[in-house]
Amino acid sequence: MTQVIVLNGGSSSGKTGIARCLQTVLPRPWLRFSIDDLVEALPQSLIGSDVQGISFGDQGEVDVGEFFREFEAAWMTGVAAMARAGAPIIIDDVFLSGAASQQRTRSHLAGLDVLWVGVRCDPEIAVARETARGDRATGMAASQALLVHDGVVYDVEVDTSRTESLDCARAIAAHVTP
Amino acid sequence: MTQVIVLNGGSSSGKTGIARCLQTVLPRPWLRFSIDDLVEALPQSLIGSDVQGISFGDQGEVDVGEFFREFEAAWMTGVAAMARAGAPIIIDDVFLSGAASQQRTRSHLAGLDVLWVGVRCDPEIAVARETARGDRATGMAASQALLVHDGVVYDVEVDTSRTESLDCARAIAAHVTP
Amino acid sequence: MTQVIVLNGGSSSGKTGIARCLQTVLPRPWLRFSIDDLVEALPQSLIGSDVQGISFGDQGEVDVGEFFREFEAAWMTGVAAMARAGAPIIIDDVFLSGAASQQRTRSHLAGLDVLWVGVRCDPEIAVARETARGDRATGMAASQALLVHDGVVYDVEVDTSRTESLDCARAIAAHVTP
Amino acid sequence: MTQVIVLNGGSSSGKTGIARCLQTVLPRPWLRFSIDDLVEALPQSLIGSDVQGISFGDQGEVDVGEFFREFEAAWMTGVAAMARAGAPIIIDDVFLSGAASQQRTRSHLAGLDVLWVGVRCDPEIAVARETARGDRATGMAASQALLVHDGVVYDVEVDTSRTESLDCARAIAAHVTP
Repeated sequence: MTQVIVLNGGSSSGKTGIARCLQTVLPRPWLRFSIDDLVEALPQSLIGSDVQGISFGDQGEVDVGEFFREFEAAWMTGVAAMARAGAPIIIDDVFLSGAASQQRTRSHLAGLDVLWVGVRCDPEIAVARETARGDRATGMAASQALLVHDGVVYDVEVDTSRTESLDCARAIAAHVTP
Repeated sequence: MTQVIVLNGGSSSGKTGIARCLQTVLPRPWLRFSIDDLVEALPQSLIGSDVQGISFGDQGEVDVGEFFREFEAAWMTGVAAMARAGAPIIIDDVFLSGAASQQRTRSHLAGLDVLWVGVRCDPEIAVARETARGDRATGMAASQALLVHDGVVYDVEVDTSRTESLDCARAIAAHVTP
Repeated sequence: MTQVIVLNGGSSSGKTGIARCLQTVLPRPWLRFSIDDLVEALPQSLIGSDVQGISFGDQGEVDVGEFFREFEAAWMTGVAAMARAGAPIIIDDVFLSGAASQQRTRSHLAGLDVLWVGVRCDPEIAVARETARGDRATGMAASQALLVHDGVVYDVEVDTSRTESLDCARAIAAHVTP
Repeated sequence: MTQVIVLNGGSSSGKTGIARCLQTVLPRPWLRFSIDDLVEALPQSLIGSDVQGISFGDQGEVDVGEFFREFEAAWMTGVAAMARAGAPIIIDDVFLSGAASQQRTRSHLAGLDVLWVGVRCDPEIAVARETARGDRATGMAASQALLVHDGVVYDVEVDTSRTESLDCARAIAAHVTP
């Protein structure tokens, strides 16, 4: 029985829309969390510029420091504990370090039945959608589009370039073990 | 010289994304307003249920009452005045009464050089995007998708079903007289 | 008959809360607009750093350039037109240039019955509230608290330091001519 | 060493502002989570009307069903796991069942060093602030103001009726063991 669905993709690839659609198409209720929730939970002082927190460069690059890494590990430990306590969880993540990020995530989710999902999007299209959204630092879509999939292994991959989020969600749902 | 761009389309057809992209691709700076801004400006008591304000039905239908109509006329008068004062304006609107809405809008914009743009989207796709957004009353996309274009005459039409907002914006920009 | 209520005060002085309460306590429905709405309407490229748009310094200072000034004049012309068309309007503003800002605003509102309201707040308390909100650039509250009232003449003044927004709204409403 | 700070108070009592201020005044970085985050994580279908999820009555009353209770238990288990993994956590909660809610929360946080904080606010003032915020269901402030403290035992209590959030945060911080 699938207990956790991990959606990995770059900024503006459409992960959140797919996660919301998954909540609609899956028969049981699932909780939806995002690495953005962790950023939201941080003290203001650690966001934007602090070398120990999370900082955003002029070209959309994201750098994370020691405090962020520690908080991220604790956060993932907690999300895994929610799943072990019986809540099915969709995690919307960005593997900034590709395979190494997946390895870290995998160790936190040890013992859980995880469905690994790659959310791909043509970089050019992700950049266009970033412009249309207008609420993300310019350049994040471009800098993350390929990087986050580097060396990552998936159970299922979807591509939002020409497939709507709802159809991607249906394709993913077909791999969820009830 | 185009002074006002009116984007008309149903809920979740992608108007706001196109408007933001237009602001990026057009050479001069343009202001962007939406009929949603008027709803936001209303007293809380007129939103949601009041027969004189704006109310939302179970199937996503939108009903507007006398106060809303009066405020809408005043708002449109004001937006037209901004354009006459020299600010190029993109209006993101929903012609709930189709041709009659266009007629009313046209009379408010009298004397201005207006580009009328139809933003179409396959109803099924708009409904899917409504699910992915998760922040609009369910049913609005379906109930408005065709209705808002009924009898409306456009200078240019775009279809977001299979074209990204940025490409739609470029197609529209080609019709803007500098 | 009062047609426009102008609330002037520094960042985090509580203007928006008072405006919402005014919409509740006033017998007729009023529309509520804020100078923040204009910032929201600007192209992304004019916000944050552009010398012709609106930019925010490290100490919370706000600088506005030529494009912003022109758009602001057009926007105020439009809001005045809404009031002349019959919609009672509450404007939530920040007179960055004190008396000169009021003079500019007064000329846009010529012929309208305007109630000028000063929204004061002890600088120290405004700074504390800025911290509690967490959504404004740090320093804006401090830098604007006194500056925006410099040389401005009011019909009524309220102080949110020790009076709730709703009570301030009631005090203002007593000066509104029905 | 304090590992978890639980802020309990009714809607519009000022918990979130205090939590943000705590993040500023405490020497180490703390994460901030709210029961609202759980509501945000739920499928849309469980919010607003579903008897198994969380529903909101006309008078501001909040009812939670079986699914919500189960998810809440899993969520709290997860937040406790984050604290055990080393992240200091501020939880912003609403004890709808008073002492029984505290008992449930206490069992989830077993073994952790918890500071229990009561955030009080005169019901009349909380109601006024609810009006000023304009983003909460009317009536929640009134219905929760006293109820949530019923039988609850605190290490420290603050009252936002006449004390700013930042000062409340400083009073709480004095009880945090470093």
